[in-house]
This record gives sequence, C-alpha cells and structure tokens, in this order.
Amino acid sequence: MTDLSRLSINQETLKQWSLPELTEGCVKAGIDKVGLWRAPVQEYGVERTAQLLTDAGISVTSLCRGGFFTALDPAERARALDDNRAAIDEAAALSTDTLVLVSGGLPAGSRDLHGARERIAEALAELGPYAQEQGVRLAIEPLHPMFASDRCVVSTLSQALDITERFPAEQVGVVVDTYHIWWDDQAAAQIARAGAGGRIHSFQLADWITPLPAGVLVGRGQLGDGSVDFRAFREMVEATGFTGPIEVEIFNEGLWARDGAEVLAEVAARYVEHAC
Amino acid sequence: MTDLSRLSINQETLKQWSLPELTEGCVKAGIDKVGLWRAPVQEYGVERTAQLLTDAGISVTSLCRGGFFTALDPAERARALDDNRAAIDEAAALSTDTLVLVSGGLPAGSRDLHGARERIAEALAELGPYAQEQGVRLAIEPLHPMFASDRCVVSTLSQALDITERFPAEQVGVVVDTYHIWWDDQAAAQIARAGAGGRIHSFQLADWITPLPAGVLVGRGQLGDGSVDFRAFREMVEATGFTGPIEVEIFNEGLWARDGAEVLAEVAARYVEHAC
Repeated sequence: MTDLSRLSINQETLKQWSLPELTEGCVKAGIDKVGLWRAPVQEYGVERTAQLLTDAGISVTSLCRGGFFTALDPAERARALDDNRAAIDEAAALSTDTLVLVSGGLPAGSRDLHGARERIAEALAELGPYAQEQGVRLAIEPLHPMFASDRCVVSTLSQALDITERFPAEQVGVVVDTYHIWWDDQAAAQIARAGAGGRIHSFQLADWITPLPAGVLVGRGQLGDGSVDFRAFREMVEATGFTGPIEVEIFNEGLWARDGAEVLAEVAARYVEHAC
Repeated sequence: MTDLSRLSINQETLKQWSLPELTEGCVKAGIDKVGLWRAPVQEYGVERTAQLLTDAGISVTSLCRGGFFTALDPAERARALDDNRAAIDEAAALSTDTLVLVSGGLPAGSRDLHGARERIAEALAELGPYAQEQGVRLAIEPLHPMFASDRCVVSTLSQALDITERFPAEQVGVVVDTYHIWWDDQAAAQIARAGAGGRIHSFQLADWITPLPAGVLVGRGQLGDGSVDFRAFREMVEATGFTGPIEVEIFNEGLWARDGAEVLAEVAARYVEHAC
C-alpha cells in the first residue's frame, strides 16, 4: 500500500505524452493531480483541457509559467504584463490557484541584478491584485544560481521571500523546488520563513545529478538518482504546516525517450521510496 | 598608460602555454605575477619553476589546488591530507603565501552536505598549523552552487567564512572569485565580513557567460563578455583595505584555442577596461 494522495505529476516530466495520454496515464496509476505548462495547454485548448481533466477527476496543482518581468524596454515590459494577465486567466480557467513564475534574467548587456530584481517587484505590484481577483496566487520560483543571467535573477528562497513579503501572501508566494535550492544551507531557515508567512504555494521535487548537459536546462534527475535528500525537504516543508500537493517536475531527455507509463510508474515508486 | 601592477595571470587562463612561454609572455606584457596549478608545475619541476620565475622577476600569487577533504573512507582521507601537505610544501617552494582549496563534493551515494562541510573543517584543523609553519595560508574557494555535488560543497562566501572563522586568519581564509559568487545578493556583506577578518587571501576574476557547456567546467567568460560587474566587486574588495593581487582565471576552450600572446593582451586590455 502506498500513498499517492499528495503526489502531482508535472506535465513536463512526461513531455512525450499528449494531454489525453497524461490524463489516462494518471487515472490508471491512481494519481489525481497534475501540474501543467501553458504551451501544450494552449495547443490543446484551455477550456478543452479543463474539461478533459475535470471529467477524469484530476485537479491542476499549478500552471507554469508566468514571469519574465525584467525587460528594460517599456514595450517589451507591457507585453510581458499582458501575457501574465493571460496566464492568470488560464490558471483560473484550469481551476488551479497557483501560477508559477520564472521571473526573468538580466536584459542583454545589463549587469544590474538589483535593478532586475526591483523590476520583478514592480510587475508583481501590478499583477498581484488582478491575480487575487481571479483566485490565483503568483508563485516566485527561485531558480538555481546557474540560471541567474538568462532565466531568473531570483536565485534563493531568501531573495524570493524578500520580494514576496512586500505583498499579501494571498497574492504572492514562492515555489520550493528541491532542484534549485538543495545546495543552500539557508534553505531550512527560509522554508520555515516561507511557511510561517503562508507563502509556500508550491512544493516541487527533482533530483540533482551530474554531469550537467550543455545548456544545463534538461539535466534534472529522477528522484533517488542524485544528491537531494527528499525526505529531509519534505519534513522541513511539512513542519511549517504545509499539507498541499507534492509535484514532481523533472526535465530529462532520458526520461522523455522512454515509455510514458513506465516512467510514471517509476516516478511514483521513487516518490514513495524517497519522499514518503 | 595603464596600471597592470596588481594584475596576476592564472596559468589556466593560458593553458596553451608552457611555463617558459607563460613567463616570457608575461615579461613581454609587463605583468609580474602569476597564479599556478600543481600539475603543470610538477611536470616542469617545482624548484625549476621557482627558479624560472625568480629569474624573470615574476612572483606567484597563488597555487591551485589543495582540498578534496570530503571523503568518508579513512584511507582516502589520509591520502588527501598527505597530498595537501605536499601542496603546502610546493606552495612554500614557489614562495607563494596562498594555497587555493577546492574543498570537495559529496562522496558517492551521500546526500549529507552538512557532514561533508564538517569534514572540511576537520581537515583544516589538521592542516592549518602545518601550513602556517610553512608561511602558507589555506584559502577556501566557494565554488558556484552548480559544483556543489561533484567538486565543492562550499557554495557561498558565507558558508566558507562560517568554516574559516573557526581558525586563525593566518591559517585559513577565502578566495573571492567573481565567477562563483556574482549572483549572490549576500556577496557584498560577506566580502566585507571576510575583509574585516583579514581573510581575503585571493581575489580572482572571470566573467559569467551562457550557454554553459556540457559539464559546465570550462564555460567561464573573458572579462567584459558576460554578466559580472567587475568594478563593483573590486570596489567591495578594496573597501575592506585589500591591496593584494587581482588574478584573472578563465577556463575557456575558445581562449585556449587562440594565440597565447593575443589572449594575454586581450585579458590585460579587458582588465583595464572593466576592473580598473
């Protein structure tokens, strides 16, 4: 007997599957939660996706991703805000309360990390109230420092909380993703801080493995294959009172090349072995 | 007129050059400091290297590297300590006061970052007094968090200082390398802390560029090509009273494939443009 009641499968973990395949696979595996990405959802249709999942009894734990708030160009910035409002609408249509943000890297030629982080806060000030009206919380995901220049200048939970705490927890919180923060000796204290403020909006798992592939984006490990102590992270998160979904999000070419059902069964087994 | 009086060229930046080529190239370029690596020095001969550089009026600002202190196996651990004593002897023979440490990653199968960091402290307790007798300071280099599992569990200046401050500053300090810490919003405060304690034993420059290559080790950027604000870092370091050498250490396949003299001239020009 295993308890998969908290487990959510992020769609990107099973990129080889269409939305109907993901839905069917999860139902067969006894998993009733998924995390989604905007592009495949838009391709299938937002309302159609919502209906597909509702009919199957599957709920959506998060939508990825909004963000990219760091542009200096006003027109580009306005486009980003518009796109984030659309993402909030899509999250609401999918009945998820959490929009994951990849906040954005340094604009070309810029070396101003502080300025970029301030522009993220400015964007959240504009978007937070709109998101709250739609019942959606914006969740800043600190990305590993190796993504600081090109994807996200928010590299630690501490940095993310410094930004989010300027706003109500109903509007802005954080994603705790083991892949990005496992190395940080401040992670435990910052998870406690995030939990105390009601700001853990999403808890995601992936393992850290090396060598990293070129570009480093798709080098995440299957649970148990790497350096992350998942049980310790789950304990830290749950010590704050968190009882939400635990989402497995692994970008890995090797997993994508395999049979989806086999990968899903392996993820569930590894989750039970390492995170329960 | 440019001021290269503080500039030191780390040997690895010009890996295409032999030690005699490096020596001659530096003399021609008006640079009188180098940072060295153990393997090429051992190959050429430690005493012979010392003589070559002394004759040319070049001093050695650091020797890389000691470290790899995290093994659990007692025999492996004893070998590491022996090897570090040899590295200290070599540093003394080269008349440099600084041995750079790459402290070591997680042992195979381990997920215990805290334990690994403690084993680093235990090794330093054994090696510190021996180093001091030889006039050599051990310098913990926090490596970018992307190296935490396989090279160095010390990922931030804060972590490094937490360890070094257990020992006298004459024995153990830190390396401030822009490549590894540029993303960290705590870097300024931690540089001030390190400087106040007399623990900035080495100051190294490389730029952060993307995309990272597979394995991520040799993806460092020429000064000015990336995201690092070198002038800001130099100001932080010098605000503490640091007047030591500024060492350029770039691992980059593209630079290694070019003519050494051309690369050295470019490094010097970029140093003046971005860090002076």
